[in-house]
Amino acid sequence: MHTIQELQDIVGQKLLEQKFEGNPPLLYEPISYTLSQGGKRIRPLLTLLGCEMFGGNIENAIYPAIGMEIFHNFTLLHDDIMDKAPIRRGKETVYKKWSTNIAILSGDTMFAMAYEYILKTETKSIPDILHVLNRTAIEVCEGQQFDLNFETDENIGIADYIEMIRLKTAVLLGGSLKVGAIIGGADKENANHIYDFGVNVGLAFQLKDDLLDVYSDVEKFGKITGGDIVTNKKTYLYLKAFELAKGEELDNLKHYFGLSENESERKVAGVKSIYNKLNIEVLTMNEMQFYYDKALQCLHKIILETSAKQNLLSFAQQLMERES
Amino acid sequence: MHTIQELQDIVGQKLLEQKFEGNPPLLYEPISYTLSQGGKRIRPLLTLLGCEMFGGNIENAIYPAIGMEIFHNFTLLHDDIMDKAPIRRGKETVYKKWSTNIAILSGDTMFAMAYEYILKTETKSIPDILHVLNRTAIEVCEGQQFDLNFETDENIGIADYIEMIRLKTAVLLGGSLKVGAIIGGADKENANHIYDFGVNVGLAFQLKDDLLDVYSDVEKFGKITGGDIVTNKKTYLYLKAFELAKGEELDNLKHYFGLSENESERKVAGVKSIYNKLNIEVLTMNEMQFYYDKALQCLHKIILETSAKQNLLSFAQQLMERES
Repeated sequence: MHTIQELQDIVGQKLLEQKFEGNPPLLYEPISYTLSQGGKRIRPLLTLLGCEMFGGNIENAIYPAIGMEIFHNFTLLHDDIMDKAPIRRGKETVYKKWSTNIAILSGDTMFAMAYEYILKTETKSIPDILHVLNRTAIEVCEGQQFDLNFETDENIGIADYIEMIRLKTAVLLGGSLKVGAIIGGADKENANHIYDFGVNVGLAFQLKDDLLDVYSDVEKFGKITGGDIVTNKKTYLYLKAFELAKGEELDNLKHYFGLSENESERKVAGVKSIYNKLNIEVLTMNEMQFYYDKALQCLHKIILETSAKQNLLSFAQQLMERES
Repeated sequence: MHTIQELQDIVGQKLLEQKFEGNPPLLYEPISYTLSQGGKRIRPLLTLLGCEMFGGNIENAIYPAIGMEIFHNFTLLHDDIMDKAPIRRGKETVYKKWSTNIAILSGDTMFAMAYEYILKTETKSIPDILHVLNRTAIEVCEGQQFDLNFETDENIGIADYIEMIRLKTAVLLGGSLKVGAIIGGADKENANHIYDFGVNVGLAFQLKDDLLDVYSDVEKFGKITGGDIVTNKKTYLYLKAFELAKGEELDNLKHYFGLSENESERKVAGVKSIYNKLNIEVLTMNEMQFYYDKALQCLHKIILETSAKQNLLSFAQQLMERES
C-alpha cells in the first residue's frame, strides 16, 4: 500500500509525462497550459485511493485517474467562460488568455480525451466506469446550470444550495472514488458506499471552501478573503444569514450586500460583523461536520479491514482541516 | 434487410421516443429543441447501414446510432456560438434563442449523453466503438479550430481545405459507419475500409455542399444561394478560383470579394461570373467525383457480397445527387 504522498507524486509524475500536443497548436496549447498548472489533484488521487483500498493495482487505475483530472479541468475551462473568471490558480484563464471560442473548443477536446484515458485500463468493467463518468458529467452540467440560475434567483434556500453543490462539486469526488473502486474490484454495494462517502466528503469540502473564503488566515489562504461577499455569491453562509437575520439585522445585511464592489472593505467588514452576531461560522462548521459524519457512516458500511480504509480516512481529514 | 426509407423511419421514430427532459429545465429544453428539429439524420442512418451490412441486428445499433446524432448536434450547438450563426434548420440557434452559456452547457450535456447512448448495445467491442467516438470527437474539434483559423489566414491552399473538411465533417460520417460495422460484427480490416469509404463520401458530400451554395435551383435548395460568397467563406470554389485567376481576372475576383454584404447581389453575380469563366463548377464536380471514386474503391475492398453493399451504395449516390 502506498502512502498518500506517494500516490500524489505518482499522479503528478504521470501527468508530467503526458504530451498534450497536436495540430492545430491553438487547440492544444490551452490544454497543456491548463494541465501543467498544478492544483490539488484531488480527483485522480481519489481514484487511486479507491482502487488500492479494494486491493487493486494502481497501475491499472492511473490512466483513468488522469482522465478524471482532465475531465475536471475541462469543466473549469467552460465554467470560467460562464463565470467570467479572469484568474485561476494565479494565472489567466484560457478564455481570457486566448478567446471564448478557443476555451470552448479546447474544453470539448479535453472532454473527449478524458474518455480516452478512462479506457486505458484492463478491466471487464469498462461500461460500468463509463456509466459513472457519463452520469457524473451530466450532473456536473446540471449543477453549473443551477449555479448560474442562482445568480438571478432570490428564492434560493439552503436545500437548493446543498443540491447545487452536490451536483456541481460533490458527485465528481464520489465518481472519482467509484471509478477507482470498480477498477480495484469492489462489488456493486461497496462501490456505491464509497461513492456516497465521496459525495458527502464533497459537500463538506465545499462548505469548508465557503468558510475559508470568509474565515481564514489570509497568509495561509493565499488570497484575499471575502471574495464571495464582495460578489454577493449565494454561499451557505449567505443563505444561512438571510435565513436567520430578522428586523434591523436583516436590513443591515441587505444594506451591506447592496454596497458596490468599490466599497469592498466596508462591505466585507459589515457583512462579517452580522455573520459573527448570527454565529454563522459555527453553524457552517456544524453543517460541514454533519456531512463529514455522514461520510464516515458510508465508509463504515464498506466491508473491509479498517486498515484498508485508513488512507482514505486520513485524506478526508486533511481536506477538512486544510487552511487553503 | 431493411430499405433505406425503413431505416430512416426507424431512426426518426426512435428519436421521437426519447425524452430529453430533466432539471434544471433551462439545461434540457435546448436539448429537446435541437433534437426535435429534424435534419437529414445522416449519421444515425449510416450507423444502421454499417451494422446491417455485416449481418448485425439493427436493434443492437439503434441506440449508438442515436448517440452519433446527439454527438453531431452537440457539435452544432458549439459551432453556432463560434460561427455566430443565428439560424439553423430555419430556426433560431440555441445560443441566440437562450444564451452562449446555455449553449455551452447544453452542448456539454449532449456530449455526455452521446456516450451514454453509445453504451446501450450488446457487444464485447464497447472499447472499440468508444475509441472511434473519442478519436472522431477530437478530430472534429481540430477541424473546427482549423476552420476558425482559416477565417483570418490568407495562405490557405486546397490541400489545407481538404484536410479541414476531412476533420470537421468527413470523419464523423466514417466514424458513424464504423461504429455500426463493429456492432454488426465487421472485422478490423473491413471496419477500416468502411471508415475510409465514409470519409471519402464525406469529402465529396462537403464539396457538394459548397457547390450547392452557389450552383443550385433556389426553389429546390430551400434557401438563398451565394451565402458563402457573401461572407467570403474559403470554400473549395473560392480557393480554386484564387488558384486559377491571373491578371485582370484576379483583380476582379479580389474586387468582388471586397464588396460588403450590403452589395450582396452585385457581389454574388460578380464572383459567379468569374467562377463561370474559370469553369469552377465543373472543376468542383471533378474533385467531388475524385473522392466519390475513392470511396467506391474502399467499398470494393470490403469482402462481402455485392448485394450486402447495395443499400450503402444507393445512399451515397443519393447524397451526391441531392439538390439541397
